[in-house]
Amino acid sequence: MTEETWDVVIVGAGLSGLSAAQTLRKRNGKLRILILEGKDRVGGRTVTQELPAAHGIDRWDMGGQWVGSTQTYIMDLIQEFGLEVYTQYTTGKKVHHVGGPHAKVRTSSTSIPALSTLVLLDLSQLVWKIDRLSSTVSVEDPMKTPNAQELDSMTLHSYIEKHAWTEEMKEEMGVCSRVVFGMEPNQMSFLYFLMYAAAAGGVLCLLESTPGSAQEFRVKGGTQQLSERLAHQIGRESVRLGQAVTAIWQDAERAKVITATHSYLCRAVIVTCPPHLAAKIHYQPALPIQREHLTQNMPVGHLMKFVITYQMAFWREKGFSGEIVARPSAECPLSVTFDGTSPSGSAALVGFISGVQAYDWSSRELSERRDAVILSLVKYLGEEAASYIHYEEKDWALEEYSGGCPVNVMAPGLLTYYHPSLCTPCGRIHWAGTETATQWCGYMDGAIQSGQRAALEVLARLCPFTLTQEEQEVVQAAQNKNHESGPCQHIPSTSHLRRALILTTLIMATAVLLAQPQLCRDWIGQARQVVLLCGSKICCCVCKTST
Amino acid sequence: MTEETWDVVIVGAGLSGLSAAQTLRKRNGKLRILILEGKDRVGGRTVTQELPAAHGIDRWDMGGQWVGSTQTYIMDLIQEFGLEVYTQYTTGKKVHHVGGPHAKVRTSSTSIPALSTLVLLDLSQLVWKIDRLSSTVSVEDPMKTPNAQELDSMTLHSYIEKHAWTEEMKEEMGVCSRVVFGMEPNQMSFLYFLMYAAAAGGVLCLLESTPGSAQEFRVKGGTQQLSERLAHQIGRESVRLGQAVTAIWQDAERAKVITATHSYLCRAVIVTCPPHLAAKIHYQPALPIQREHLTQNMPVGHLMKFVITYQMAFWREKGFSGEIVARPSAECPLSVTFDGTSPSGSAALVGFISGVQAYDWSSRELSERRDAVILSLVKYLGEEAASYIHYEEKDWALEEYSGGCPVNVMAPGLLTYYHPSLCTPCGRIHWAGTETATQWCGYMDGAIQSGQRAALEVLARLCPFTLTQEEQEVVQAAQNKNHESGPCQHIPSTSHLRRALILTTLIMATAVLLAQPQLCRDWIGQARQVVLLCGSKICCCVCKTST
Repeated sequence: MTEETWDVVIVGAGLSGLSAAQTLRKRNGKLRILILEGKDRVGGRTVTQELPAAHGIDRWDMGGQWVGSTQTYIMDLIQEFGLEVYTQYTTGKKVHHVGGPHAKVRTSSTSIPALSTLVLLDLSQLVWKIDRLSSTVSVEDPMKTPNAQELDSMTLHSYIEKHAWTEEMKEEMGVCSRVVFGMEPNQMSFLYFLMYAAAAGGVLCLLESTPGSAQEFRVKGGTQQLSERLAHQIGRESVRLGQAVTAIWQDAERAKVITATHSYLCRAVIVTCPPHLAAKIHYQPALPIQREHLTQNMPVGHLMKFVITYQMAFWREKGFSGEIVARPSAECPLSVTFDGTSPSGSAALVGFISGVQAYDWSSRELSERRDAVILSLVKYLGEEAASYIHYEEKDWALEEYSGGCPVNVMAPGLLTYYHPSLCTPCGRIHWAGTETATQWCGYMDGAIQSGQRAALEVLARLCPFTLTQEEQEVVQAAQNKNHESGPCQHIPSTSHLRRALILTTLIMATAVLLAQPQLCRDWIGQARQVVLLCGSKICCCVCKTST
Repeated sequence: MTEETWDVVIVGAGLSGLSAAQTLRKRNGKLRILILEGKDRVGGRTVTQELPAAHGIDRWDMGGQWVGSTQTYIMDLIQEFGLEVYTQYTTGKKVHHVGGPHAKVRTSSTSIPALSTLVLLDLSQLVWKIDRLSSTVSVEDPMKTPNAQELDSMTLHSYIEKHAWTEEMKEEMGVCSRVVFGMEPNQMSFLYFLMYAAAAGGVLCLLESTPGSAQEFRVKGGTQQLSERLAHQIGRESVRLGQAVTAIWQDAERAKVITATHSYLCRAVIVTCPPHLAAKIHYQPALPIQREHLTQNMPVGHLMKFVITYQMAFWREKGFSGEIVARPSAECPLSVTFDGTSPSGSAALVGFISGVQAYDWSSRELSERRDAVILSLVKYLGEEAASYIHYEEKDWALEEYSGGCPVNVMAPGLLTYYHPSLCTPCGRIHWAGTETATQWCGYMDGAIQSGQRAALEVLARLCPFTLTQEEQEVVQAAQNKNHESGPCQHIPSTSHLRRALILTTLIMATAVLLAQPQLCRDWIGQARQVVLLCGSKICCCVCKTST
C-alpha cells in the first residue's frame, strides 16, 4: 500500500468537497489538497447525461437540477463560470390527482390547484401554521426554537394528523414530503422539517417555482458542469476517482486517510459524504458517541428520477404545463412531473418516483416501471405521451457512494440530543455536505455553503493568517457552539402580506361554514377570488418539487 | 492475506452467534464452522467481571444480567450447562423520585409505588391501554396489526402525550423507556414499542421482577459463562477473536468474509452483530436498498451500568430493597438501581445511567460521575452509601463492536416499509442477533432464539436432511414471508384478571372523581385496597429495569 503526504484530504468530489477545495486553493495557493472520490466521476448527487432527443443528442440532469435566485452560493458559482440559467416552464394547465382512491383527475390553469374550497382552506391554514412555526426556528441551533423538544418528539405525520382538517390535505402533505425529501412524513422529525423549511426561507420556498423558490431556474448544459469546472480549476491531478475511503486514523501529529489501495497522510480532513456513508467509514480513535448515534440515524430519501424525450412538447400545445401531481396507487408510479424541455428546444418530461412509490416500484423490472409511467402520462396528458423517443431513469438508492437522494433527514429525537455533532470537528476531521448547511440545507446551494464553511475551519487550523479577523471569530464561535444566531437572515421569508391574506380568507370562510350555512356558496366564491386576485401562489405547493 | 475455506462463517461470538454454531454443530457434526469476533472476548453484550468486594473478589455482570422463567431458550441453555439462577432481591422499601423538578422523594413498601391516587390511576389506565394494543400486535409481522401504519407513524412520546393524563405519568414513562431501551420515548416508533412488549408477553413483563418478567432471576457466576461454555463446547479453535469483519462478498458459488488480515471462503454466512454495526460492513454485491435503509436507521440505546460493592447490604438492614427510580436532573445521573448482592453474599448495588442521563453524563470524568452517583445514593439510602469498597462502571456506547446497549430499536416508519428486510436472507447471508427475535426480542433469550433460527435456515440450504419436515416448512414459510402467525403464542400474556382489576379500579375511581367529589376520599381509599388486596403488581412497573 503506497503512502503519500498532503496538507488537506477531502473525502467526496461533489459540490461540497470541490467547493471546499476551491476555497482552500483561493486562500492559500501553496496548500497541497487531494480530493478522494469513490465514484468514477465528480458531481456527487448531480450528474448530467446525454440522451437521444428530437434534434439528436441533448443533455439532461439525472440528479439535482434546480437553482433559485436566493441560493446565493450556487448563483455566484454559476456566474463565476459564465454559465446561464433559464426559468422553469410552468405555463398552462397543471394536473392534480390527489384525494383518496376515488379522486377525480382535476386541472387548473392558475397556480392554485383545482381543489375543493374546503381543501384549499385547509391547505392555507396548514401552510400558514407550519410557516409561522418555521419562522421561529433557529437554523444554526434548532434547539433554541420555542418548544423545540416537543416539536422534535413528533413526526411530521403526527403534526399533519393533528392539524390538517381533511383527508385530502393529509394526502397532499404526503406528496409534499415525498417530492421534497423522497420520504414519507412518518420518517422524519417535525422540527427537522421546520428547520429545513427555515433554511430555504419558508415552507413555500421549498415547494414553488416562483422567484426565490427551489424550482425557479435550471442550468443550461446541466448542473454537473459546476463540479467539472471546479475540478478543472483545482487541477484534475488533485482529484482521484474510484478511491472510496474506508478508514480515517488520526493522532496528535497527523491524520491518515485510507482506501483499498492507498493511504494518505495529511494535517486535516474534510468529510463531505452523506451522513449514512460517513457512518460506514472506520475511525480511529472512535468518534464521539453522539456523532455515531447521529449519523447512524439520519434516513436518506429514496428518489428515482426519469426523463422522457419527445419529438415535440405536445402537452404545451394542448395547454398543459407538464406538471402532474399524483397520489400513490397500484397503477401509477410517479409522484410528480415537470416540463423538462431543454434550452435548445428538445422536448422532454422529467419526473420522480419517490418515497413509498419508490419503495413499491424500485424492485420491479425497468420495462414494467416505464410502461406504468407512460400509461399514467397517457391518462393525464393524452395519447401522444405514448410516442416517446427515449425513457431514461436513475434510481439514486442504487448509486454506489450515494445510496439515496435527495437528502438525509433526522428522525425524531435526534435534534434534541445530537444536532451539534453534525458539524463539530472531531480532531483533524471536519464535516461538510449539504446536510450540514444552514442556507438551503439539502440543496446544491447548501452543499457549496458547507464546503466553504469547512474550508474556513481548516484554514483557521492550518493557516489562520489567510482569514479575516471576522472569519476567525465566526469559525471560533461555531466551534464553541456559542453562536446565538436566529434563522438565516439573508433568506427572505414568506411575506407578512401573504400570511395575512391566508389568515383573513381562512377566518372568513371558516366563520361562514360554521355559522351561516346558507351563505356558504357566495362567500366561498368570494374567498377564492381574494386568493386569486392577490396573485398569491400559496396553494400551488403540491405542484412543485426539488432535486 | 491468507485465505481459508469453511462451510459456515458466523460474524459475532455473542449468544446469538454461538447459539447458531451450537445448533449447526448439534445437527451436523461434519460442518466446518468458524466464528469471527471483533472483540478480544466472547459474550457480546454480556461480560462478567471480577471486582473487589466484602469477602475478597467476587463476580458481577457488567452487561445483560437478568433472565426469566418464560425465557425458554436461555433457561434451557442454563439447564444444559448445569448453571443455577437466583431470584432478584426486591424485599423492602422502594425509593421513588419522579414527578417534576419539585418532586418529593417517596418510598413504598409494597410493589405499588408511592404515587398520588390520580397518578396511580393514570398509570393503570395507560398501562392497560398500551397492553391491550400490544396484545393485538403480530410479532412476526407487525404490519398485520390493526391500524399498524398509524401506530408506526408516531413516536412513543406522541402516544404518551396524547393518552397520559398527568405530567408525572409522562415522566414515569420516560423512566420506563430509558431503563428498558436506554433511549428517550421520542426516538422510537410506538408500534415498535408495542411489538417489543408483545415479544416479551406484555408491557408489564418488560418492567417487573415478578415470575415470568424480565427481571426475575440472575445467573450464579454471571451470564458471560453461557457464551464461554458455548465456545468451549463448539471448540475454541472455531472462534477467532480480534477479527472484525470489514466486508462480505458473494457470488453464485460461495461467499468471502474479509477481515483486516484474513479472508474466509464459505458456503453460508450468519451475521449476528447489531444492525448499526451490520450496516458498516461492505457488501458486494450491495444489499437490497430496503435492508440498507433499515439498518441505517435503527438507533441503539445508550446505557452505562455501574456496580458498587459494600462491606454489608446496609440498605437491607434499613428496610430498603435497593430499588431506586429517579428522574433526570442536573445532580443525579442514575435512572434506576437494584440490589446487586452476589449469591455468596458480597453486598452490592447495581444501577444504570441511561438515555438522556447517559447523554448528559457520559462525557464527564469518571470521578465526577461516580461522586454524583454516590451522592444520590446517600440522599436516597443514607450516609452509609458513601462508604463503598469499589465503584465500577461500563459505558456500552464506548465498547468497540457494540457501540450501545441494550438494543437497537426502530424509528417511526421503518416497520411500515422495511421490517421484512430484518431477517430475509440476502443470497448466502443470513441474519441473526436479538433484534431479529420474535420471543424476548432485545434480550439474551432473543439472541439465542435468533441464532437457532438462522442456523436452521443455513441447514435448510446446506443439508436439509438434518431438518424435520416441519422445520423445513417453517424455514420455507418464513423465507416466503407468507407466515400468518399472530403474537408469539408460548409467551403468557398479562392475565385477563389483572387487566379486569385495573379496569374496574380505574372506572370506579374515575366515575367518583368526576361525579361525586364529596365521596372521593373514601372511594379512593377503597380502590387502593382493591389493588392491594388482589396482590396485583401492576403499578411497580417503573421500579424495574432490564439489561
